[in-house]
Amino acid sequence: MRFLRFLSLSCFIILHFFSYAKAQTLSWQQVEPGIWKAEAGEPEEYDLLTASGAEPRLAALAAMGEADFPLPKQDIKVRIIDGETYLRFPLQRGEQIYGFGLNFKTVHQRGRILRLHVDHYGGEDNGRTHVPTPFCISSNGYGVFINSARYITVYAGTAVRKDSEHPPVVRDRNTDSDWTSRPYSDVVEVLVPAEGAEIYVFGGPTPLDAVRRYNLFNGGGPLPPRWGLGFTQRVHRLFTADDVRKEANEFEKRGYPLDFIGLEPGWQSKSYPGTFEWDQGRFPHPKEFTQEMLDRGIRLNLWINPYVSPDASFAEEIEPYTGSHTVWAGMVPDFRMEQSRDIFFSQLEEDQVDIGVSGYKIDEVDGYDHWLWPDVATFPSGLTGEQMRQTYGLLVQRYSEDMFEERNRRTFGLVRASNGGGTSFPYVIYNDYYNHRNFITALINSSFAGVLWTPEVRASDTGEEWLRRVQSVVFSPMAMINAWSSGTKPWSFPEVADEVREMFLLRMRMMPYWYSEYAKYHFKGIPPFRAMNLEEGFSSNLKMEQAETSLEENPYAEAVRQEITDQYMAGQYLLVAPMFEGQESREVVLPEGRWYDFYTGDYVGGGEVITVSPGLDKIPVYVKDGGIIPMMPAMMHAPELGQTVDIEVRHYGQREGSYRLYDDDGTTYDYEDGEYQFRELTVIKTRDGKLKGSISPPEPGKPNTVGEVTWKFMSQGVE
Amino acid sequence: MRFLRFLSLSCFIILHFFSYAKAQTLSWQQVEPGIWKAEAGEPEEYDLLTASGAEPRLAALAAMGEADFPLPKQDIKVRIIDGETYLRFPLQRGEQIYGFGLNFKTVHQRGRILRLHVDHYGGEDNGRTHVPTPFCISSNGYGVFINSARYITVYAGTAVRKDSEHPPVVRDRNTDSDWTSRPYSDVVEVLVPAEGAEIYVFGGPTPLDAVRRYNLFNGGGPLPPRWGLGFTQRVHRLFTADDVRKEANEFEKRGYPLDFIGLEPGWQSKSYPGTFEWDQGRFPHPKEFTQEMLDRGIRLNLWINPYVSPDASFAEEIEPYTGSHTVWAGMVPDFRMEQSRDIFFSQLEEDQVDIGVSGYKIDEVDGYDHWLWPDVATFPSGLTGEQMRQTYGLLVQRYSEDMFEERNRRTFGLVRASNGGGTSFPYVIYNDYYNHRNFITALINSSFAGVLWTPEVRASDTGEEWLRRVQSVVFSPMAMINAWSSGTKPWSFPEVADEVREMFLLRMRMMPYWYSEYAKYHFKGIPPFRAMNLEEGFSSNLKMEQAETSLEENPYAEAVRQEITDQYMAGQYLLVAPMFEGQESREVVLPEGRWYDFYTGDYVGGGEVITVSPGLDKIPVYVKDGGIIPMMPAMMHAPELGQTVDIEVRHYGQREGSYRLYDDDGTTYDYEDGEYQFRELTVIKTRDGKLKGSISPPEPGKPNTVGEVTWKFMSQGVE
Repeated sequence: MRFLRFLSLSCFIILHFFSYAKAQTLSWQQVEPGIWKAEAGEPEEYDLLTASGAEPRLAALAAMGEADFPLPKQDIKVRIIDGETYLRFPLQRGEQIYGFGLNFKTVHQRGRILRLHVDHYGGEDNGRTHVPTPFCISSNGYGVFINSARYITVYAGTAVRKDSEHPPVVRDRNTDSDWTSRPYSDVVEVLVPAEGAEIYVFGGPTPLDAVRRYNLFNGGGPLPPRWGLGFTQRVHRLFTADDVRKEANEFEKRGYPLDFIGLEPGWQSKSYPGTFEWDQGRFPHPKEFTQEMLDRGIRLNLWINPYVSPDASFAEEIEPYTGSHTVWAGMVPDFRMEQSRDIFFSQLEEDQVDIGVSGYKIDEVDGYDHWLWPDVATFPSGLTGEQMRQTYGLLVQRYSEDMFEERNRRTFGLVRASNGGGTSFPYVIYNDYYNHRNFITALINSSFAGVLWTPEVRASDTGEEWLRRVQSVVFSPMAMINAWSSGTKPWSFPEVADEVREMFLLRMRMMPYWYSEYAKYHFKGIPPFRAMNLEEGFSSNLKMEQAETSLEENPYAEAVRQEITDQYMAGQYLLVAPMFEGQESREVVLPEGRWYDFYTGDYVGGGEVITVSPGLDKIPVYVKDGGIIPMMPAMMHAPELGQTVDIEVRHYGQREGSYRLYDDDGTTYDYEDGEYQFRELTVIKTRDGKLKGSISPPEPGKPNTVGEVTWKFMSQGVE
Repeated sequence: MRFLRFLSLSCFIILHFFSYAKAQTLSWQQVEPGIWKAEAGEPEEYDLLTASGAEPRLAALAAMGEADFPLPKQDIKVRIIDGETYLRFPLQRGEQIYGFGLNFKTVHQRGRILRLHVDHYGGEDNGRTHVPTPFCISSNGYGVFINSARYITVYAGTAVRKDSEHPPVVRDRNTDSDWTSRPYSDVVEVLVPAEGAEIYVFGGPTPLDAVRRYNLFNGGGPLPPRWGLGFTQRVHRLFTADDVRKEANEFEKRGYPLDFIGLEPGWQSKSYPGTFEWDQGRFPHPKEFTQEMLDRGIRLNLWINPYVSPDASFAEEIEPYTGSHTVWAGMVPDFRMEQSRDIFFSQLEEDQVDIGVSGYKIDEVDGYDHWLWPDVATFPSGLTGEQMRQTYGLLVQRYSEDMFEERNRRTFGLVRASNGGGTSFPYVIYNDYYNHRNFITALINSSFAGVLWTPEVRASDTGEEWLRRVQSVVFSPMAMINAWSSGTKPWSFPEVADEVREMFLLRMRMMPYWYSEYAKYHFKGIPPFRAMNLEEGFSSNLKMEQAETSLEENPYAEAVRQEITDQYMAGQYLLVAPMFEGQESREVVLPEGRWYDFYTGDYVGGGEVITVSPGLDKIPVYVKDGGIIPMMPAMMHAPELGQTVDIEVRHYGQREGSYRLYDDDGTTYDYEDGEYQFRELTVIKTRDGKLKGSISPPEPGKPNTVGEVTWKFMSQGVE
């Protein structure tokens, strides 16, 4: 019997061995409504979903209903060759592709080649980025996710197959001026360097539907605590408790809101590599200090990177559960191993979480290659360097959130790497790169990558730049100044200090809107900050403009790409078009429909390109016709647990409209057990043509923090 | 019996399967004196040496003698994990690493990470280059070659192992200003994405010895025909036969030497993709035209890229032997298949080689990714896209040279990609990139990569730039203007036309020296143009200079590399230090010993850094004490077969010296059958302190083209 088993195993291996280079017919299984899975080759045991532990939001997916399989199945092809997986998806003429991770310069990905690789952003959209999610969205209304923790190479409509049914025109370069160095390609081709991978297809019918299905399949977006949506200041890296105290006093004195303070490396006794314990000189009484700040309504967030100093108290204990290589002479915990997690996170829990620390900024889990473990690193769990690189950001998010979830306290932090499967983690991506325009493009792309991104403000050359950056960050997932190195304050540029304060107060006033939009990310999978390309009525085709340069400088006569990378949707109703330093006016592409100025309620246009000159104190923001924005008073801190807040509901335009205002306790995970409600805000036109607003009654027994509700019809009498 | 075989195969596979992640002890076999080979894992059948078909020059290697195995064997480690090969080599403190392909900005490679990948050069030394040879040379006098046709990742002294015997100092970044983001690493680690690879170690004792062994093992350098060392002009891409004729007339009239003319894409009836046949409009009588040019002493070299137009006469025939993807809508011949080679090269032979065409420029066999076949391409021979990418340059060189070798006519051409194993091919690497300084750094690195490189001149903004570029290209493997797009001529900048002509005449006068140096490349493996780092008495340590920038701009306080990348050795005795546009003076690092000005014979220094201001008409060139440079009259074309040439022998400095002057028929491969000789040029000091030169008698029965020999003692009376 044992011999037979042996033989059967042998046969299996031999057959497997000779299946080399065979084409495979994919078998698509619907795993949730509108979501299909197929196994190419033999998928590996460890993949992005294993790493993230993502669990689909089943009810929300069911509520979205069924969808048609969005692609011709016979045109999706797979072959396993030489131990690698070759995938192929068809492209239609005019179809656009978005996604493939957190790109910083481009939105349209058709025509691009990417090797998806977790890394710092090096200035080029080549697949190396903090979040190289192997997920793409088609303008034709579907998404494809490749669930592999490998460096996947994507040819997104670049390669031309000899057997193509839509071959490019053959031209003679000697004589034909229409010759192009980039002939038409009708296929996305993908190389997964493993013997198999799970492939998921997400149905539409719209691109936003596909994104929603992807996000919900990965657990939905995170719901931050209310305080997470306030303002946060990260202080200089060597600040002492007393310095922090003074900083908080100064915020209070000057009337700038402040919800959490980030302590940078100096809170630890040693850093790079870290001890993960408080520095007794700079923070002699961490417990008392943390409580003192909490009592003032200010939370603490601590910087770490996970690399363990030999001087850490648990260094010897964790050593067997760390990788073969060190990072800045620190050991690399193998978070795939329970032992490693127990030892590492116990230190954080006992020393920090249990005394009231509210979250972490987890740095340098992305790269870059010169510091991180190499691909030849090995880990005791058996993961390779590559697998660990692709998933370390997921692992640190997953297991650090666990600390807070176990205590039923929400957290909201920062992390520098994530990947597919990471949608639900309460972390915002950031980086060291500091190009304001590219930061906005990243914000756009974050909605395709299943993550949140902050265009953090660190320093600036001028007050103008400072204010422009602040305006952008206020309309982003996390409103933050990161002064770890510069020591900047919101008021560092006196000439714009008042305008900066106004922006922060606006952030606070808009908290009911932001909070409701995050709830929709969580419960419905709609990214709160997202690409225009996910908005109905927005048309943005990639334009290729023939360059004027000579063949001497441009030997292949390559065209220059023109695309819109500097405006985005913020929540259900707002279109944000940031101004950049040096700019006095800009173009804004308005989708179909009627759009109104956020500040005045004035009609500005629709289905057209407008040019605006808003002045230095304003960031251009436009509201869709019928848009409803719930706001609250400009408080200095987010409402605390149980605090009742008055709501001013703004309505824009002439159309009737509605909005779902979210409410819960703001700090715990009880919403997962149904302890929340959506209140319906409705504006109707009365018989005499007047607009009238109403709010649905609160659900009995559910958290209810809504105080008095007032209505403001911003476009009343305007037109 | 059959069953037993089956079982034994099964057992083999099963054992192999379970050998996953096992460390392997390497078994080193001496394959030639001073060269050792080990097999890591199970090397693939197809590798760089298979592709190139390189055959060692056994006698030359034997003549070099034995060497000690240069590394502690126990510190060379290999593991096969997850189907990939992990290699590890030790590094000593202070040891420098050079090589890993044709880099354009850096010479020192310790501290760098490279993924060796045939590609166009994209502006960054990251392993993607025209020639990513997996060969490195240590300043401690040895070389390592990894014979794999895969994308190899190299961590050249960057990664830090937990089990290192020389760990970096652990520092606290909070307080220690000596903290560095690049801790000390004592190891080169290599990832070969295959289940095995051959590894070769080349002994010293000097770095040049290791380079020589590598080159000889790969067949020695190519010996170009004499005409290959003259001047070559590549004419505008749409030139007609008559345009070419006029161009040649103009060269003659103005007294500029000219040995071969390059015809760019327009010689073909169609290009990109190509038909590989003459355009009947521009070249109505190719046979007569080629002969006419040959009669004038001017050869023709034809541009091609190997991608076959559907309009090529042999398109249908070759189709089954082409890859799955097209390049610019052209089919990609699978040159690993004899059928493909027969069809493709027959066309070239019958249409071009047999009527007297002297060689090819083979373009775009490197990349870049957007045009070439993707890694998911497949080829009928079974090679993967990756293997074909890494070796296509080798294959086109190998099989195109065969056409000429079969006819016993030497060729000398251009190619845009090569790799390890390609040393012997009579091709020079070039590219589209056009940075003069970086071109010189590439020239330096070509000597580590086993290739020749030309810093071709195309266009310039000013006469100064034009002349400076010409000066560099005259002291390089191929003296070329490439006017394919610009239509420039040597005299395009009238203000420096005379100086340019003087440089070209100098190139011609130095032909006996260049030819002898190429012979030493072929017979002894010494690169004719090479890094200072291969020169005894030259000390160049990589310096890391702390940058002054703030943490805001440089968050990891990264140091800036300082290294010498702008001077090189040309042949046995010359040190060349090019001047760059805008420069009025420059520093030159002179190795130990005494050095003399090439033009005047004046002593300039030794073992020191000098600053020189040579004026616009001179490129700084210095001669080693005792240096001997054989020169000839400034002819308009290289000597033809059997033509006798007078030699002027220049001697520099005060020391006695000698030089081996090479001679053969200049055009055939008969030298491979011994039809050549080296004549010994000797300078001795007579009793009265005078210098006296002599030449050894010619070997009877061997080719002898040396006419009258005169001697010129350049530093006589000077000091």
